[in-house]
Amino acid sequence: VNIPASYLNIVKKEIESFCKKLTSSPAELYDPMRYMLSMEGKRLRPILLLLSCKTFNGKLKPVMPAALAVEVFHSFTLMHDDITDNAPLRRNKPSVHVKWNTNIALLSGDAMMIKAYEELAKTPKPYLHQIFTVFNDMALKVCEGQQMDMNYENRERVSISDYLDMIKLKTAALFAASLQMGAILGGASAKDDNSMRMFGENIGMLFQLQDDILDVFGKQEKVGKQTGGDIIQNKKTFLLVKALELAKGKDLTELKSLLSSKTIKPSDKVKRVTAIYEKVDVLKHSKAQMEGYYKAAIKAVAGIKSPEIKILSGLVSQLMSREI
Amino acid sequence: VNIPASYLNIVKKEIESFCKKLTSSPAELYDPMRYMLSMEGKRLRPILLLLSCKTFNGKLKPVMPAALAVEVFHSFTLMHDDITDNAPLRRNKPSVHVKWNTNIALLSGDAMMIKAYEELAKTPKPYLHQIFTVFNDMALKVCEGQQMDMNYENRERVSISDYLDMIKLKTAALFAASLQMGAILGGASAKDDNSMRMFGENIGMLFQLQDDILDVFGKQEKVGKQTGGDIIQNKKTFLLVKALELAKGKDLTELKSLLSSKTIKPSDKVKRVTAIYEKVDVLKHSKAQMEGYYKAAIKAVAGIKSPEIKILSGLVSQLMSREI
Repeated sequence: VNIPASYLNIVKKEIESFCKKLTSSPAELYDPMRYMLSMEGKRLRPILLLLSCKTFNGKLKPVMPAALAVEVFHSFTLMHDDITDNAPLRRNKPSVHVKWNTNIALLSGDAMMIKAYEELAKTPKPYLHQIFTVFNDMALKVCEGQQMDMNYENRERVSISDYLDMIKLKTAALFAASLQMGAILGGASAKDDNSMRMFGENIGMLFQLQDDILDVFGKQEKVGKQTGGDIIQNKKTFLLVKALELAKGKDLTELKSLLSSKTIKPSDKVKRVTAIYEKVDVLKHSKAQMEGYYKAAIKAVAGIKSPEIKILSGLVSQLMSREI
Repeated sequence: VNIPASYLNIVKKEIESFCKKLTSSPAELYDPMRYMLSMEGKRLRPILLLLSCKTFNGKLKPVMPAALAVEVFHSFTLMHDDITDNAPLRRNKPSVHVKWNTNIALLSGDAMMIKAYEELAKTPKPYLHQIFTVFNDMALKVCEGQQMDMNYENRERVSISDYLDMIKLKTAALFAASLQMGAILGGASAKDDNSMRMFGENIGMLFQLQDDILDVFGKQEKVGKQTGGDIIQNKKTFLLVKALELAKGKDLTELKSLLSSKTIKPSDKVKRVTAIYEKVDVLKHSKAQMEGYYKAAIKAVAGIKSPEIKILSGLVSQLMSREI
């Protein structure tokens, strides 16, 4: 993704300075935070927040705490999700619960969420209550979505609509809140901050659909996660739910038996499920779905004119074909 | 503990109404919160917060969100601590990670922390920034203390001063913040809110010392936790740290070998460590230490005159000999 360098650099510097200012003791609490935040991320959410603020000619300095808060919160969710999802790798490095241990990942994650709130509390006072409320609402949605995601692993029947409900919470809520908070802090009208929120939500949806694709079809060196991790965990991704809809006869039987097998070698499971995905061409359907979210995102902000909206729209179209 | 019934009832009603208003789906996220909050607790922290507010003639209604926030936050820490401490029982019922599973206890705990912040956000706007800051500061301290507690389990040398540093963070910070937030919201001067904070910190210290005693010498039916859980986990409690200081010769050798044994039956370990505690009379030292905190608490608020200060002082002296 070709993110405007100036924004990326601003965010990188903020994160660096945040990490430097972190207390060092107890090390088990703060080192994992630094570790997570120093991984090369896209920093997409804070950048979107800043661009949203700039859309309404807002100043960037007062928005920095909120931008940092969304990135730190996002990073906290990764730390805890890696525990629950049993994920060994994150951006090509061992996950916190592997590098340290589960108890440390749990507690350091808790502290990291609090650090996100600590940043958020630096928001200019006239906006604090509204921003705090948007943030809390988002944070709960993210947890609800993650819980649904976990529940779906053991549920046989998950429809495309169930799946979309889940990712709207798990992933899109944070994108939506980032864009909305940027707009609020930039001084947007209630109508415009709602448009930006809708823009963010649609970005989030297509982002997650692409994430599902990358988990299976991405290159591990680039994506930095175990290839096929979702397949191993029986995650009800768009690909799997769609494939269960599309596959017939022998293919469907095989797919179901792969999902229920407790003895199959993980790498074999990934290979054979992927083969079925290719046979029924789930990718085509994913891409069509993403196209729909792309159009909805662009439509949401059609009434707002600014150079940043152009940058944002360009970003979204890049997200559709991102490789990391 | 003989808590003023009117305050206890107010808090109980608030918690009941909070539980009723909780969303029901996904059940795995919200049921454990209801489960934790419906256990019969002392509700000490919110009650102290309300009494602190009343000390300065503050109205109770605007303080309720903060009172609820400290109790919900406290309950969240118990949910996560029970995971890390491997604790099977909480108030005579299975812990959340036992009744459901670890992933659910983790995620429901995360959501519960967010619910605490959601309550906090309802604090009257003129006070929001200050209350939010006190709360964040407290929350981080609690995590730091819990991490130190975990670290101490595997550290051979822990001094009384190390131990006191740890419980000041793990336990006393939440008591201190509760009293301070109540005072701030009651309209106290900066001097008085600091006095109330110091009062709270000292209460917290003696509360934890009594907690350490109850873990070993309390009745399981009353305390509701596995008797000797701290001993099994090699928790560096006041009792253990002091016993390691006091024990000599054969007793010290036995105590150390009990701590390092990986094969001993937990119930035998509890019995034999307890016997050494009794032999060196650690209880006497604990009680003397608590007496010091009691005096410091009373001294901290000597300059503040109100009927509530009398109730608070009475509460503290009861905490010294509480059985639950």
